Amino acid sequence: MRDFSNDHAWLSINTATVRRQWALDRIIDECARRGIRAISPWRDQVAATGLERVARQLREHGIGLSGYCRGGFYPAPDAAGLRAALDDNRRAIDEAKTLGAPCLVLVVGSLPGALDGRAHYTDLARARGEVRDGIAASLEHARAAGMPLAIEPLHPMQAAERACINTLEQALDVCDELDPARSGALGVALDAYHVWWDPKLQQQIARAGRERLLAFHVCDWLTPTRDLLNDRGMMGDGVIELKKLRGWVEDAGYAGFSEVEIFSEQDWWQRPGEEVLDTCIARHRSVV
Amino acid sequence: MRDFSNDHAWLSINTATVRRQWALDRIIDECARRGIRAISPWRDQVAATGLERVARQLREHGIGLSGYCRGGFYPAPDAAGLRAALDDNRRAIDEAKTLGAPCLVLVVGSLPGALDGRAHYTDLARARGEVRDGIAASLEHARAAGMPLAIEPLHPMQAAERACINTLEQALDVCDELDPARSGALGVALDAYHVWWDPKLQQQIARAGRERLLAFHVCDWLTPTRDLLNDRGMMGDGVIELKKLRGWVEDAGYAGFSEVEIFSEQDWWQRPGEEVLDTCIARHRSVV
Repeated sequence: MRDFSNDHAWLSINTATVRRQWALDRIIDECARRGIRAISPWRDQVAATGLERVARQLREHGIGLSGYCRGGFYPAPDAAGLRAALDDNRRAIDEAKTLGAPCLVLVVGSLPGALDGRAHYTDLARARGEVRDGIAASLEHARAAGMPLAIEPLHPMQAAERACINTLEQALDVCDELDPARSGALGVALDAYHVWWDPKLQQQIARAGRERLLAFHVCDWLTPTRDLLNDRGMMGDGVIELKKLRGWVEDAGYAGFSEVEIFSEQDWWQRPGEEVLDTCIARHRSVV
Repeated sequence: MRDFSNDHAWLSINTATVRRQWALDRIIDECARRGIRAISPWRDQVAATGLERVARQLREHGIGLSGYCRGGFYPAPDAAGLRAALDDNRRAIDEAKTLGAPCLVLVVGSLPGALDGRAHYTDLARARGEVRDGIAASLEHARAAGMPLAIEPLHPMQAAERACINTLEQALDVCDELDPARSGALGVALDAYHVWWDPKLQQQIARAGRERLLAFHVCDWLTPTRDLLNDRGMMGDGVIELKKLRGWVEDAGYAGFSEVEIFSEQDWWQRPGEEVLDTCIARHRSVV
């Protein structure tokens, strides 16, 4: 297992972590100033600053990506919606390519409309079928573009609204079906927050192996957790055994970035961005 | 699959559903008035009214139990705590026996202290080991008393504070280890709210079979869900495919009560108890 205690060479910042404080260009400058070597930006942040401008700024600073957030959201109430999702994923793949991302993270979607409190249907098996078909379709363009797709299993508390792939085992079953050769074109983004509770986690991480482990995200699970989406904790402030988990991931062959992704309405989004980034660096060294 | 549309012979009311409105004796009277044949009471409610008095009242009304809530909470920071948990579970088994319950529901516990925001340890594997050992110890007394234990897998969003058994598969693995003969002494309480998202649900329900399926709980998953504990929905108001789920459970041989358990701080606990029970009856007939 790599020693993170002396530097933060393998720290990446998911830019949602300071999205309330700064626009993306400022986030990149602040990361560069601290010697942070990688970020994972969101599409809306990139669009707000401008894709080409972001790509240039990253090159100038020598900052890479640990992933691009995000594709997915495949299920739809009708054929037109399904086609629109595929078109949007195609664009996301192209943007990821322009930015030099190592993978496009997929939050696959679930019951269409549920995010707005009005599910068009509740057939979860149908949503899962539409997700499988959507990933299969995106995979063709992704292979052509040389952009790996990383399925992110989301915590079951997000199963209605955001992702109907909810365990690592389930994500790997889709990978095995659609990419049996383990070509590297399809894998998973493993976020500690979503999977820490899973009794089969260690076993499934070993199953995933180096070819499937495309990204590793960290934050912490707070007790109590006051909100299903935006109450993530800073590493070390909750109950996730982050070092143990990183050990499993590295035993499986993962040697990439440890990406900090914290959505925190009441705490970290309220603090100065400088404090957030400095804390991420300190905790990356001490508890990740 | 049984037809529930014409009566509510298989409806049970978990008494937490109207706990803010009424004490247990009143709940029992109101259920009797409506021809509800079964309840599942909580230990604190029973203690407040008096165990013998509750047992007598149930007999007088001819009301049975679909379960008794609850045993469990095994993990502890030290040996004294572990012993205290076993003693408490022994008392719960005896109370369940006095009340004529068909099973004692186990919310197994997880990281000790996490419920108060101060986990004594974060080693989830340790908690799971303590749970396994605790159930094994309780099982001896339970067998002697003739009181089946029903492990309730809790939603992964409760994995830190309330239960480190979070999938049906995991619960059944414990059952198979501790009761390989499928004697009927150990099984599961399947709550739709906790398990609806599980991609292996249908498969694992079939695996459970009649001997392991000791209780079936229903409510609904709301979008959005505003609280991790107390924002459960009335059946039909959310996205859970209740009829499909009951079909799977009945295909596996379950023929018992459908128990309504709704914790609802902002909605159903604020309404008159009469309205809540009448709605439970109506929805039991129309959507369960």
